[in-house]
Amino acid sequence: MKAQRYTDFEYFFYPRSVAVIGASLDDGFSHALMSTKMRDNLFLVNPKYNELFGKRCYASILNIKDNIDYVVIAVPALLVPKVLAECIEKGVKAVHIFTAGFSETGLEERRRLENEVKEIANGKIRIIGPNCMGICCPKSGLAFTPDASTEEGPVGVISQSGTFAEQFLTIGKLRNIKFSKVISYGNAIDLDCPDFLAYLADDPETKVIALYMEGTRDGKRLKSALAKAARKKPVLALKGGVTEHGSRAASSHTGSLAGSPGIWSAIFKQTGVAQVEDFDELLNATLALAYSPLPSEKGTTIITNSGGFSVLETDLCVKTGLEVPQFDEKTAAELRKIVPIAGTSISNPLDAWPIFYNMPGTPGTLADAIKILARDKNIHSIILHFDEISYLRRVLGKALEGHLKTLIDLMISGCQYARDEIGKPVIICVSLDAYSEDEEDREYHLLVKKAFENERFPVYPSLNASIKALFNLYRYSTEFRKV
Amino acid sequence: MKAQRYTDFEYFFYPRSVAVIGASLDDGFSHALMSTKMRDNLFLVNPKYNELFGKRCYASILNIKDNIDYVVIAVPALLVPKVLAECIEKGVKAVHIFTAGFSETGLEERRRLENEVKEIANGKIRIIGPNCMGICCPKSGLAFTPDASTEEGPVGVISQSGTFAEQFLTIGKLRNIKFSKVISYGNAIDLDCPDFLAYLADDPETKVIALYMEGTRDGKRLKSALAKAARKKPVLALKGGVTEHGSRAASSHTGSLAGSPGIWSAIFKQTGVAQVEDFDELLNATLALAYSPLPSEKGTTIITNSGGFSVLETDLCVKTGLEVPQFDEKTAAELRKIVPIAGTSISNPLDAWPIFYNMPGTPGTLADAIKILARDKNIHSIILHFDEISYLRRVLGKALEGHLKTLIDLMISGCQYARDEIGKPVIICVSLDAYSEDEEDREYHLLVKKAFENERFPVYPSLNASIKALFNLYRYSTEFRKV
Repeated sequence: MKAQRYTDFEYFFYPRSVAVIGASLDDGFSHALMSTKMRDNLFLVNPKYNELFGKRCYASILNIKDNIDYVVIAVPALLVPKVLAECIEKGVKAVHIFTAGFSETGLEERRRLENEVKEIANGKIRIIGPNCMGICCPKSGLAFTPDASTEEGPVGVISQSGTFAEQFLTIGKLRNIKFSKVISYGNAIDLDCPDFLAYLADDPETKVIALYMEGTRDGKRLKSALAKAARKKPVLALKGGVTEHGSRAASSHTGSLAGSPGIWSAIFKQTGVAQVEDFDELLNATLALAYSPLPSEKGTTIITNSGGFSVLETDLCVKTGLEVPQFDEKTAAELRKIVPIAGTSISNPLDAWPIFYNMPGTPGTLADAIKILARDKNIHSIILHFDEISYLRRVLGKALEGHLKTLIDLMISGCQYARDEIGKPVIICVSLDAYSEDEEDREYHLLVKKAFENERFPVYPSLNASIKALFNLYRYSTEFRKV
Repeated sequence: MKAQRYTDFEYFFYPRSVAVIGASLDDGFSHALMSTKMRDNLFLVNPKYNELFGKRCYASILNIKDNIDYVVIAVPALLVPKVLAECIEKGVKAVHIFTAGFSETGLEERRRLENEVKEIANGKIRIIGPNCMGICCPKSGLAFTPDASTEEGPVGVISQSGTFAEQFLTIGKLRNIKFSKVISYGNAIDLDCPDFLAYLADDPETKVIALYMEGTRDGKRLKSALAKAARKKPVLALKGGVTEHGSRAASSHTGSLAGSPGIWSAIFKQTGVAQVEDFDELLNATLALAYSPLPSEKGTTIITNSGGFSVLETDLCVKTGLEVPQFDEKTAAELRKIVPIAGTSISNPLDAWPIFYNMPGTPGTLADAIKILARDKNIHSIILHFDEISYLRRVLGKALEGHLKTLIDLMISGCQYARDEIGKPVIICVSLDAYSEDEEDREYHLLVKKAFENERFPVYPSLNASIKALFNLYRYSTEFRKV
């Protein structure tokens, strides 16, 4: 495989026109591309139809008069060689083969089919796939799932698995993550993970790279690409198949050799890549790294409204690798002035529920408390745990809406001071259970969540996720950041 | 403290009448009790009001003519001695002191106040608290939060923290957990954790005990109570304050000495109590233990629709302590007949998305697949991961509703066969993100979730939770169950 020039990728990420071969009303690519600005430069191909989505549908790509830069091949595996040959004849630059059923099946005949495809392409056309979702690039309108955000942002994703990439986009959208490029590369018969790493490392629109991989055919090349990328920007990696059984599952998924877990951990460590343990950690850490400053030390404060959970939250922080130190004396004295005694505590975590109810003009608001904590010399990051809705609803009834709006303003003003004036990371937890059915309660929670997201604070639905994300910020700051 | 006779507890769990002293429109106790059958035997006391919730409000408990078995004291700390003395005068049997601001503040004057309360009670009345939520017993109508389920069930909870108990009830309801008794005991100046453990151990309505504690004043007595309870039924315990910082937080929360984490782990191990790591694990494991048979060995299969996640799911299972073995030959041969090649895998996890679409009458349905797996000699438990809604909606449109209904029936029939005929546990994962805003999507997910819950399958919103819960079943089966 020859080295990839940056410009070669233009057709993969910024094609002027796209064709989907094997388009139908069911296929996600047509749906996704019809919902972005690519709509007007989209061509649909399928001999079964004359029209789809109100567009003309062509029997073959060769019938299209316009130039086609990028093609999505979504036809049965046995038809791929013929369709690929037509793409070459048409002068297509970049092809994404979605179709599965190649070497990953473990069947000899399917391995031969994959080799046949490789030989047809050989130097005449560049391929991503097969057995993958291809590329999503909000800036150009390339997309592979209708659920993705169409807004541009700083996060680049490289995933061997298509479902993983889709899920990252879908859940990422719910966490307000904005993407530069999302790449699902599958069996990688031509372009492979190192090519995409090199591209995203140089891509000025990508600030953080999140990587999911199950194995590689060329460990040396991958290692070099990882090291180069990690020197330029944060790279977070999740390796699938790190257990014996998982490795077996990986080989039947993308046909790649997974290697031993120890080797992978060593590679990530040596190359300055932050390895994470699962999907949630990758997503949550990526969100934090993309949008938050880094903490300089371990000391964290948690602002909460529950003494019961503050103990467990502290345990969680410490078990994860952070610290929840005592406040310095100045902080304690200042807080004591604004926090009543009964049922509250001015130790860290700050279990200070009454100040959640102090409105502007009263002695101490939540904004005041956050600002006091932000100035504490023992405190290097703040977790604000907001879980007050059901109580506020009961106490305030209809008056909740106005109170909540003011409370949000107070919280945001305190958090902005901490992050923007003092430079300490602030992580927001807006607790919400996945199965919650109280629609009004959900709406209020989402209102708070979005208010923080609008100010670019990372928001998580659980304390566990918040703490893990903050730890990843700390870890990146101390272990990986190049000074 | 004298040993507690079972019958003494009747007034705490099954009072014939309840008074709330310090009732108001804001207070959660009145709200909660007004929403259960206790409503008719509820008396409200507060000199500020003549009427509350359409009920007469008394200036003092001494003004009530009826007998009062159980009192909730929710007045400021400094008024508690006077109010308690009135309860004794009235002949009340059981008192719950909700009020905080006693020894847990760390203030000497508040410690003295707590002692004063103790001395007033001394032998004349039994107390739970102060600084706690008291007791919830759906069977009698005792309740402390309006969000709790009023249905009776097999789960007993003992929690030192009130918020923890409330949260367990609230999230537990969303997981379809039904409770026998939920006890929040706080500072425990009279009745303490060992008393409640002894009661729940003998309580025929409690099948599983979930315990949250931060410390104890009498380790020997607690240890003996834990051992006795664990000999009778599964006891799961979460210890708050297992880190140095967490232990400091605990002492400012309930004023108890937390002890070293090593000591606690040893106590739980010696007494046959299953220690868990956090709130979610306690809740999830309790759900599984209350409603599922136990697996005899580690071998698990995951039925999924995503190859990408099957690798990570396998890693998660193995890292957690389970195994994801190869199917036996018979299973592989039977499955091969019903699973097409492309994009699927007949290894374990079963990444067999096409069979999610086979309707009754077609060669192989999801019910058939689950039944085949249930008979596999290497497989001792099943995780069914359902995450098909968005795809089904796109492909089927309006036809989804009917399809989904049939699919649910197929899944349930397979899962019932596995659990009820073969005796293997089946854990259901219906993936749903906390911040999901697609209401239709949420409704379909909740429809599937509830269908499984109606048949008493444990359902979790994430794979992580499902796997951890299953592991706790396995662990209980091998480490703790008395043969």
